[in-house]
Amino acid sequence: MSDIRQQALDYHEFPVPGKTAVCLTKPAQTSHDLALAYSPGVAEPVREIAADPETAYRYTNKGNTVAVISNGTAILGLGNLGPLASKPVMEGKSLLFKRFANIDSIDIEVKHRTTEDFINTVEAIADTFGGINLEDIKAPECFEIERELIARCQIPVFHDDQHGTAIVTAAGMLNALEIQGKNIKECVFVCLGAGAAAIACMTMIVKCGALRENIYMLDRQGVLHTRRDDLNEYKALFANNTDKRTLLDVIEGADAFLGLSGADLLTEAEVNLMAPNPVIFACSNPDPEIKPEVAHAIRADLIMGTGRSDYPNQVNNVLCFPFIFRGALDVRASVINDEMKLAAVRAIAALAKEPVPTDILAAYPNVTSLEFGPEYVLPKPMDPRLLVNVARAVAQAAIDSGVAKITTLPDYSL
Amino acid sequence: MSDIRQQALDYHEFPVPGKTAVCLTKPAQTSHDLALAYSPGVAEPVREIAADPETAYRYTNKGNTVAVISNGTAILGLGNLGPLASKPVMEGKSLLFKRFANIDSIDIEVKHRTTEDFINTVEAIADTFGGINLEDIKAPECFEIERELIARCQIPVFHDDQHGTAIVTAAGMLNALEIQGKNIKECVFVCLGAGAAAIACMTMIVKCGALRENIYMLDRQGVLHTRRDDLNEYKALFANNTDKRTLLDVIEGADAFLGLSGADLLTEAEVNLMAPNPVIFACSNPDPEIKPEVAHAIRADLIMGTGRSDYPNQVNNVLCFPFIFRGALDVRASVINDEMKLAAVRAIAALAKEPVPTDILAAYPNVTSLEFGPEYVLPKPMDPRLLVNVARAVAQAAIDSGVAKITTLPDYSL
Repeated sequence: MSDIRQQALDYHEFPVPGKTAVCLTKPAQTSHDLALAYSPGVAEPVREIAADPETAYRYTNKGNTVAVISNGTAILGLGNLGPLASKPVMEGKSLLFKRFANIDSIDIEVKHRTTEDFINTVEAIADTFGGINLEDIKAPECFEIERELIARCQIPVFHDDQHGTAIVTAAGMLNALEIQGKNIKECVFVCLGAGAAAIACMTMIVKCGALRENIYMLDRQGVLHTRRDDLNEYKALFANNTDKRTLLDVIEGADAFLGLSGADLLTEAEVNLMAPNPVIFACSNPDPEIKPEVAHAIRADLIMGTGRSDYPNQVNNVLCFPFIFRGALDVRASVINDEMKLAAVRAIAALAKEPVPTDILAAYPNVTSLEFGPEYVLPKPMDPRLLVNVARAVAQAAIDSGVAKITTLPDYSL
Repeated sequence: MSDIRQQALDYHEFPVPGKTAVCLTKPAQTSHDLALAYSPGVAEPVREIAADPETAYRYTNKGNTVAVISNGTAILGLGNLGPLASKPVMEGKSLLFKRFANIDSIDIEVKHRTTEDFINTVEAIADTFGGINLEDIKAPECFEIERELIARCQIPVFHDDQHGTAIVTAAGMLNALEIQGKNIKECVFVCLGAGAAAIACMTMIVKCGALRENIYMLDRQGVLHTRRDDLNEYKALFANNTDKRTLLDVIEGADAFLGLSGADLLTEAEVNLMAPNPVIFACSNPDPEIKPEVAHAIRADLIMGTGRSDYPNQVNNVLCFPFIFRGALDVRASVINDEMKLAAVRAIAALAKEPVPTDILAAYPNVTSLEFGPEYVLPKPMDPRLLVNVARAVAQAAIDSGVAKITTLPDYSL
């Protein structure tokens, strides 16, 4: 472990600090180059943009730039460590945007006193970018922040901790339920954890067909139910009209469990109480709510996913966020709406059913099979078809739902 | 002209929109790479920075990143066209930072209602960066904005339109006065224009030895004098206790003229009235206050500079800003103070006196001589020695004045 620790620190420090840099896309050697790039030539695109703001997409980097913005109030599983400490994560996210979708992404860490301050700051700088990825912002403030910024900005604003997680979880869950022969409309879901990701995941599961009354969400005080008076407006959406109060109460007969809580919070006894052919996504990181080897030892009829790359069925946001932004930017969508999110869910789920090219297998030497089934309900992050399939589906959904400025699809062939 | 216009637009649009992109400085191909760059490895630098904020300089891109920030209220000579229209200029500045000093620079355009809003926004995001270059912000707001941000931020904040212009102007002026055999303490200066750059230039000229009572600054209402009641606090610093009211009044016997006003505002008659061996820096862009060929036709004893690259003695901010930031970042200066600015003035001025390597001559095929004299009082932008000489002088001044966190100079050999 300390070896990995030192490796990670060395990776970040050498040969240069950090993970991203700026590079030039235009020649800048000669005086002539510079006369076009800067004064006097630069006056021409300035005048064009002043006359028609849309031309910023023609003459500047705006259209391919996504800002990854955080206030550091909920960094990974580490909590509220402040904006500066979140910088390695935001830079890491920028690295993933570039690596997977060729999106130029910069990190911005925001110091603020109030939620309104934060919203005002992001709104003030938003026109610089083609899209904004909000990250590691704690609940419940993150809901208001995202809602307000979507309303105030002309570009897509997307809180990945909510919707990226929800999209990938839903894609995996749909496939797992299908393999288990279950109809989502009849399934009982237990969601342990009631933070931003949990609420977004269950909202997406409802959009995918689940019935709200079949969902039991739990926070530290137990089941969210309609007689509780301590629920904020976001948790209240999942208050169940039930007498059940504990995880033990609700897990009995449940078809699916989603864990977004903490290590080892799901017991073997509880797993034993679930319905036949259950699905468990134990996504707490780095330690899941129950270890896959423990759960599988109890039940052979189980499909299990985690947040970890060293087990099958990793629920990993990187399956979604680079590509949903790629699709949104490609057709200049003004928002990332529900239609686009659902298109991403379906595209990710569908890709898991397609045969995996051998070169992707080569990237996963320890994985014996990548064939649709209990151990492969989600594509692998290194699958280059994600870019094509997800971005295309998202772009098409943006066009179809009327939020795209560009109404023809780009060429998404590999 | 329309050909240059189209060239500039094409340069900005093709093959990709804009001039800068993001690139990765670390491997990001394998799952192992990504486990170091993002979860779980990224938690290690997060913890380090939470424990000691200074380690952000070890583990993130902060230390080599400069934000170029504008509100678009004074874009080039074009005026207040709004933040988005300023984006090509800010991106151009980022290009110059990278091209000349290998600084990773990103542009941020800020929409705001009040000056205080703007200051709050920049302060809120400042920790993301190693330095902030303010650009194209109109006077007098720019003075308060810079002063407040310097006070509130832990990193260098530098309004290039003021201080970059002032440093390069002062360097050229010192050399021109020396060639003309004049002692700056005895020189009479006329500054046509009383905006941010003009005030900064004359402030720097005073720091270089000029006497305040020998300076006549003019705005659209004429000479700034002590009986005017329409002067803001910044102009008031240059109110002269004089009965002279017009340019014609003050130009008689003046040793040096600095123009930061508009095209053709200095007449041949006025040039004729100046003292023997005068210096004229006619820096209005693109058209100077008087054309060099016109002025030289009147007087043979004149040294002339402009803002244009197609005449000798171009007063160009790019001689300063990449290198003053390079020096400041290299020793992690908390501010860019007067000592550092004066060090930059002296380093730039000194470089013009050194023999020019032949490869620099090759970059300027139309220039017959680059030998210290009336037609060469400032180095050329393509001179690679600027990086070494100016950055080293600035870094040393930061160390000597006690504002540097790193107190040993890096290796500045070419």
